Amino acid sequence: MTDPVLDHLETERDRILERLLDFVRIPSVSTDPAYADGMAEARELLRLRLVGMGLSGVRLLDGGGHPAVFGECRAGDDRPTLLVYGHYDVQPPDPLDAWETPPFEPAIRDGRIYGRGVSDDKGPSSIALESMAAYLRVEGTLPVNVKVLLEGEEELGSPTLPDLIRRHRDTLESDAVLSADGASWRPDLTTVNVASRGNAGFEFTVRTASKDLHSGRYGGAVPNALHVLATLIAGLHTSDGRVAVPGFSQGVRDPSPDESEALRSIPFDETAMFESLGVEPVGEPGYSTLERLWVRPCLDVNGMWGGYLGAGGKTVIPHEAHAKITIRVVPGQDPEAVIDLVKEYLVDQCPSGAVVVCGADRGHSAAYELSPDHPLLQVVESALETAHGTRPHRVRIGGTLPVSDIVRRELGIDTVMLSYSIADEDFHAPNEFFRLSSLDLGLRAWTAVWRQLARVDRVGFRKIREDPPS
Amino acid sequence: MTDPVLDHLETERDRILERLLDFVRIPSVSTDPAYADGMAEARELLRLRLVGMGLSGVRLLDGGGHPAVFGECRAGDDRPTLLVYGHYDVQPPDPLDAWETPPFEPAIRDGRIYGRGVSDDKGPSSIALESMAAYLRVEGTLPVNVKVLLEGEEELGSPTLPDLIRRHRDTLESDAVLSADGASWRPDLTTVNVASRGNAGFEFTVRTASKDLHSGRYGGAVPNALHVLATLIAGLHTSDGRVAVPGFSQGVRDPSPDESEALRSIPFDETAMFESLGVEPVGEPGYSTLERLWVRPCLDVNGMWGGYLGAGGKTVIPHEAHAKITIRVVPGQDPEAVIDLVKEYLVDQCPSGAVVVCGADRGHSAAYELSPDHPLLQVVESALETAHGTRPHRVRIGGTLPVSDIVRRELGIDTVMLSYSIADEDFHAPNEFFRLSSLDLGLRAWTAVWRQLARVDRVGFRKIREDPPS
Repeated sequence: MTDPVLDHLETERDRILERLLDFVRIPSVSTDPAYADGMAEARELLRLRLVGMGLSGVRLLDGGGHPAVFGECRAGDDRPTLLVYGHYDVQPPDPLDAWETPPFEPAIRDGRIYGRGVSDDKGPSSIALESMAAYLRVEGTLPVNVKVLLEGEEELGSPTLPDLIRRHRDTLESDAVLSADGASWRPDLTTVNVASRGNAGFEFTVRTASKDLHSGRYGGAVPNALHVLATLIAGLHTSDGRVAVPGFSQGVRDPSPDESEALRSIPFDETAMFESLGVEPVGEPGYSTLERLWVRPCLDVNGMWGGYLGAGGKTVIPHEAHAKITIRVVPGQDPEAVIDLVKEYLVDQCPSGAVVVCGADRGHSAAYELSPDHPLLQVVESALETAHGTRPHRVRIGGTLPVSDIVRRELGIDTVMLSYSIADEDFHAPNEFFRLSSLDLGLRAWTAVWRQLARVDRVGFRKIREDPPS
Repeated sequence: MTDPVLDHLETERDRILERLLDFVRIPSVSTDPAYADGMAEARELLRLRLVGMGLSGVRLLDGGGHPAVFGECRAGDDRPTLLVYGHYDVQPPDPLDAWETPPFEPAIRDGRIYGRGVSDDKGPSSIALESMAAYLRVEGTLPVNVKVLLEGEEELGSPTLPDLIRRHRDTLESDAVLSADGASWRPDLTTVNVASRGNAGFEFTVRTASKDLHSGRYGGAVPNALHVLATLIAGLHTSDGRVAVPGFSQGVRDPSPDESEALRSIPFDETAMFESLGVEPVGEPGYSTLERLWVRPCLDVNGMWGGYLGAGGKTVIPHEAHAKITIRVVPGQDPEAVIDLVKEYLVDQCPSGAVVVCGADRGHSAAYELSPDHPLLQVVESALETAHGTRPHRVRIGGTLPVSDIVRRELGIDTVMLSYSIADEDFHAPNEFFRLSSLDLGLRAWTAVWRQLARVDRVGFRKIREDPPS
């Protein structure tokens, strides 16, 4: 028995691909004002597309930055309301000369579409829209109320999304979010993301003297800011790989034997991963690699500098040195409190003769964890099984998806990810690509979602909003 | 009883100052090819000046880089031969907007001449030449054979001076060097430099993965090159301030009680020095500040960098990190051997999962120490006493003067410094200045040197060359 929606998608396949390529051709780079025209062009393309699909209330929502594109489709007051999320902005294409074909001239090679933003998030967003359009065309209506929100600042870290939601709370009020963003882990394994680590970062400076000093004239008798910085950074970890800051992991629950067993049951060739990265495994003793990546917090210095960085040498004792730090937090940790602990530790460890000056917290996201019995998660798992022919593994994300955390804080609802982006597709790098096979699998899975949702009542969704997981 | 040479200098005083200002007006920056015309102009000014003074054999000596200006004046085969050294090249004037008056338009304010190179080394070199010119004019001949060598690459670290000396060994053969370069320590104390520390440096890189990794995706399970670099640099010193590299200070003789007492007898308000620098004293336990600065070796990181250095944050685990190191060596240390020890230590301390790649030694100078009974040292001390009315303190230099080491290696002779540059005169910085009082004191002291040398025979000088201090 074939699904008429899938039949329709099949006949539309060439036009769906053509529309995706048109979308990718638009240089909608949010981080660089030089691309303002591209951003406007992408919004206009999406606005026309939403109208063309038959959505109502299609408009731009302003949060103070690049506006989002919104549209909705009512199914009835007795039906749950789903917020479908994607984003139309893309990373800058630099370095341009590393691209085999120009970033905004999408090219198909070996079953892949190459182009900036095709995997993050224009391909996955298009799948969501195309599946809705097909369902609407064939069935006349969607099985639930749908609100579509296509953000324009995801690549900036969604700085104005909280304000945008606050300004348009009634418009965006929903029962759950189904996100077309959030890359899946691997091309060889069907997975669904159920959690992500949060992120918090800051920069700090070490100061010693009032100016740089000559290393001949003063060397051996005055402090060197680089030595102090190195000592402070070295002291952030113990020699066996733990974060040395007292209380850093406080509140973090160790995985239960069952949870550890579940992680162990996930097919994962870690030897191959480490080999491909050219590294040896390191990390907190007593935890597996997946535990270190998914359920344990960590701290990394992302940048460190001071003194003379040019060619040759310079006989200088630097009086200032700098470092940037990010911390990945997990459920049970308050990112602000953890940042404060690390800052206090640095100040405390700073030797006499030097001072540590910490910059402001650069914004943070809490860790995110989906309730294992969230009805939308079950819908998505079932849809993935339908599309892939195999039950998905529940996996976590070591990285951070601020949108889920923002939406939970601002709307009190949960986010389930159904993105057909895969983490190896070089988004944020040259030669970003998207698998043509993902386009087909994605359309099948999203269609299966709409079919499943026809069988879900509103109560299941509201329950999550009224009693959010802690 | 007045000295007719000093009387002559007195009548010439305005013209001497005018000639110095003309010299300073020439932008003879050796490090930047854009100043090639200024370099040539400075050579031509000096060539004409040496001819005008009555020197013979005036010509340029080529060592493969910027040529030096040479001239000589014979006193007789039975007289010692003195090589008078100075340099005509200057540091770049950047940052230009930090100068109160333009760097190559010398200006006199508050008893000081401001201009690039006036203290390093055009003022002190001019004193040497003017005193010779006056002595020749009044006495008809100098008391010793004099060879004048005015280098053009001192600010580059004298890279071609060894070759220049080898190519022109017979021309430059002498019994000792009297240097018009090498700043004196303080404006408030009459001193003579009898030693300097050597210098050796290199750069090294830490590598972990084959590329930068995403801190969300991999954080907690892979090595971070910045953490490794910080640990290696922190490990270069013990917590109480010693260099931790085994064997680092091997061969260094501790000062004898008499030597320590001599250092203690030098007037030195170290509290004021540390306050002016805005630092607290640090360093090797068991040594005084002057011992740490003058007779103990030290190691400083001059630059350190890796990862993301721009504005904001970037969620990266850097796979490469870099540092530049210099080491000040003292008598008893072989700079090459010390560099090797430090490199071996870094490689040895590097944890599994990372590699240390050391760059080439950036060139080095051994420490320099003048025999306490060198006859030219005694001549200079006596001349300083005549000019200043007080016996000079013998002091050392924490920094490095490569010329002394090169001349000892290439010609087997010693160098005594009689520079009227003072270390606080902002050479290598904006608003370099030279005290007008130094011009007058310097002319008196150099004249006293010529008077003293009239009483020295050649044997005293030859002795040093044939039996150089180890």
